[in-house]
Amino acid sequence: MAKAPQTAITPTRAEDYPEWYQQVVRAGDLAEPSAVRGCMVIKPWGYALWENMQRVLDRMFKETGHQNAYFPLFIPLSYLEKEAQHVEGFAKECAVVTHHRLEAGPDGKLVPTGKLEEPLVVRPTSETIIGATYAKWVKSYRDLPILINQWANVVRWELRTRMFLRTTEFLWQEGHTAHATRAEAEEETRKMLGVYGKFAQEYMAMPVIRGEKPEGERFPGAVNTYSIEAMMQDRKALQAGTSHFLGQNFSRAQEIKFLSAEGREEFAWTTSWGVSTRLIGGLVMTHSDDDGLVLPPRLAPQHVVILPICRNDEERGPVIEYCNKLRGELATQHYDDGPVRALVDDRDFPRADKKWQQVKRGVPILVEVGPRDIAGDTLMPKRRDEPAGEKKPAISRSQFVAGIGTQLGAMQQSLFDRAFAERQQNTRTITKLDEFEAFFTPASAEKPEIHGGFAVCHFTEGPETHAILAKHKVTIRCVPQNDEPGFEESVSGKCVFTGRETTQRAVFAKAY
Amino acid sequence: MAKAPQTAITPTRAEDYPEWYQQVVRAGDLAEPSAVRGCMVIKPWGYALWENMQRVLDRMFKETGHQNAYFPLFIPLSYLEKEAQHVEGFAKECAVVTHHRLEAGPDGKLVPTGKLEEPLVVRPTSETIIGATYAKWVKSYRDLPILINQWANVVRWELRTRMFLRTTEFLWQEGHTAHATRAEAEEETRKMLGVYGKFAQEYMAMPVIRGEKPEGERFPGAVNTYSIEAMMQDRKALQAGTSHFLGQNFSRAQEIKFLSAEGREEFAWTTSWGVSTRLIGGLVMTHSDDDGLVLPPRLAPQHVVILPICRNDEERGPVIEYCNKLRGELATQHYDDGPVRALVDDRDFPRADKKWQQVKRGVPILVEVGPRDIAGDTLMPKRRDEPAGEKKPAISRSQFVAGIGTQLGAMQQSLFDRAFAERQQNTRTITKLDEFEAFFTPASAEKPEIHGGFAVCHFTEGPETHAILAKHKVTIRCVPQNDEPGFEESVSGKCVFTGRETTQRAVFAKAY
Repeated sequence: MAKAPQTAITPTRAEDYPEWYQQVVRAGDLAEPSAVRGCMVIKPWGYALWENMQRVLDRMFKETGHQNAYFPLFIPLSYLEKEAQHVEGFAKECAVVTHHRLEAGPDGKLVPTGKLEEPLVVRPTSETIIGATYAKWVKSYRDLPILINQWANVVRWELRTRMFLRTTEFLWQEGHTAHATRAEAEEETRKMLGVYGKFAQEYMAMPVIRGEKPEGERFPGAVNTYSIEAMMQDRKALQAGTSHFLGQNFSRAQEIKFLSAEGREEFAWTTSWGVSTRLIGGLVMTHSDDDGLVLPPRLAPQHVVILPICRNDEERGPVIEYCNKLRGELATQHYDDGPVRALVDDRDFPRADKKWQQVKRGVPILVEVGPRDIAGDTLMPKRRDEPAGEKKPAISRSQFVAGIGTQLGAMQQSLFDRAFAERQQNTRTITKLDEFEAFFTPASAEKPEIHGGFAVCHFTEGPETHAILAKHKVTIRCVPQNDEPGFEESVSGKCVFTGRETTQRAVFAKAY
Repeated sequence: MAKAPQTAITPTRAEDYPEWYQQVVRAGDLAEPSAVRGCMVIKPWGYALWENMQRVLDRMFKETGHQNAYFPLFIPLSYLEKEAQHVEGFAKECAVVTHHRLEAGPDGKLVPTGKLEEPLVVRPTSETIIGATYAKWVKSYRDLPILINQWANVVRWELRTRMFLRTTEFLWQEGHTAHATRAEAEEETRKMLGVYGKFAQEYMAMPVIRGEKPEGERFPGAVNTYSIEAMMQDRKALQAGTSHFLGQNFSRAQEIKFLSAEGREEFAWTTSWGVSTRLIGGLVMTHSDDDGLVLPPRLAPQHVVILPICRNDEERGPVIEYCNKLRGELATQHYDDGPVRALVDDRDFPRADKKWQQVKRGVPILVEVGPRDIAGDTLMPKRRDEPAGEKKPAISRSQFVAGIGTQLGAMQQSLFDRAFAERQQNTRTITKLDEFEAFFTPASAEKPEIHGGFAVCHFTEGPETHAILAKHKVTIRCVPQNDEPGFEESVSGKCVFTGRETTQRAVFAKAY
């Protein structure tokens, strides 16, 4: 049998982080590029991960009073034009449907015919089409709030795409709510940011900072945009979810009006919030290693994969029987919100190939079972987050089964702790400009992407600030909320870029 | 308070069945038309019904070994062209994306720019794009079968649309499988037809006939198409789901080739199968009445709605408390695969309005609770499928709670039985042409749609047969499978249209 390679993924993170990412996604059976520009195929293993994310998020949305609905894929051009900033933000990346038929042309090739009177835009986001519907639904204050979420596909014609992180078509959820008061809408915006933060940290094991975006980074048409920001292993930031307070901008554009309890006609206050399959990219870049994907147990499609070892047909019968029995026992155990998910991988492929495939797929716990293990009724389970070479003593089958929930819980916690420690290690409070510039200057020309990480600085916005940020390709990620550790109190200091006194502090980073 | 109207839906079924349908869909809060041609907005109540359908179907797909995945929304024109019959079948109704940007034109209005080199078709179905991916995945017989399902939106530019039954965009699932042998693919095709039949009958309480489509009614590119056919209350047929055996047509077009165990290069055998939001239209037209929607309990978003009756604020406290307690007790009871779903409708709207709304939404059981009910600790629950005027004696709260599962189960069965009896009553075995023609001739000019129902006839295909069918706007719905009651044995007879001897029998009907 061929010797297993030292690392499953070529290149390693240190060699070429962006390429490592693409290879982990492919080798981990998450997705692959399609023939359609910028669109990917989400493979069954990747989609099962997304289904688990959806299930948890959907439950969280419903627990906070939201219902799902579905609105059209197509948006009439005239709708998009109603909110000036909004259309400006999306016009450059819209897929436009102009015809509704195909006919054979002179050369026999099909050409589009049946030109539409008004072109239709494939939704890049649905504020306008949903707002038009809410305008019909809302008449009185009694009709508010409207708390709706939609699971959908959206299309943004991005120039550069990268699987999960930025694709032409992606899957997401978009919440759209309408309220009678400003305070209620603002509360909703922050509440959903909180839901995203909780999901990222407790399910994805991905530490995030919740905060407000600076003016230039707001959603087109929003009054305020809030985001959760995570640090990837290359120390760049990933915006992993956003929640927007839209004020009355969209309700004015779309005439979402209601009669208040006092009998006055008022415009509703709206919000929107979304997370997408981009989260999967964040999950990959937070936990994976040079052997491939590492999945947090709460979201992993399978918790345990059992690999039968049998050298011949004679051994096969009892080994498979033992494996299936073990699988059944594991399935009687509980972890998180349901039974432990275990699978016997008895496909007709070489064992080493299967093992490496399951490692690269990030299965939390792998157990190989051969005649010797059966004889002793002991197992040597391998936790995906522990060093590959580490040898642990064998444990009895019953011990393994009884302790499976604890192991999975420990792995979930350990992934979070490790990512959190890494972020802390690469986050620095910076008060001086030269230190800021050094922090974001690449270590070497060969590794242009390696830099310090997150910088926490006092700042004021203005041309000087933005010129320095542009020079280093650094952005203001967010002004952390005052319930983020270290940001509870307002602290005065000097703006790193201008020297002006300010209480405003933000997280600065290079970003995806 | 205004007197409640005699019927909630105007017009009644007898007055105008097609218009009654539209009104039931709207009054039942399932969906409403959108500003986008032929596209609808699926409202929260309608979407919750779809989610319940999805949940059950998804479980059935997974139990039969399928996994979910996701493929691109857009199909390059060149892909669609690869299978000649396929493209011919869909070319007339394709939404085509031709541009990827919007820019202000001379008059300041936005116009599409950034013309694509190759137009993209918004998927009307995904055989071609998925086949292209399978061609990459399949190398050896070991890679087969591939058993994948996708939940997605698709677009078909239909000329005439009707909510749920035929919309430009609709939601569906499409299964796409590839197999090493013809026999295995044929078995898959029939297995999934069986899943659809089981779902329709056991969950939707909608009796269906499973059978094979005649040649002219096959899916474009398929070797055989199978369908489930249901009779609506206007006696017309609704094709509610289809399963296609695609032979090697698509694998040849897309080059899905594999090396067999014997080392030969072979083309895979593929299938596809789908059901869509059209099922909701079928559900509406099977069970609803002149008061609106009637939902089968297994799929209803809520099983029980509790309506508090309180004339003043003093009464309100204890009534709401009692209602909430009742709701909690109901939620401890089980029905089908989970706890009973109960809701207290304490919205700030007049009680009569709320009651009618819940009736029109088809909630299986409504319970009004006022001070008098509380005093006696007795309730008068109203089952949606029982005649509106029927008075039943009050029952104790504990009796109601303990019996809720039984009541829901009884309602589910009763809906099926009633629909089945109605279908039987309006299905006739016909052996003579004049009887066939009379059966399908409208009863009167005012009601052009009223006719006999389903006719079971011996037939042979050919110009005479099709001319008579076209004249009466009747179609061959399907040749029932030999496990359909009455079709177990091959029976000889004369073709109703040509007099030729044949053993072939089919179900004939007017259809949606």
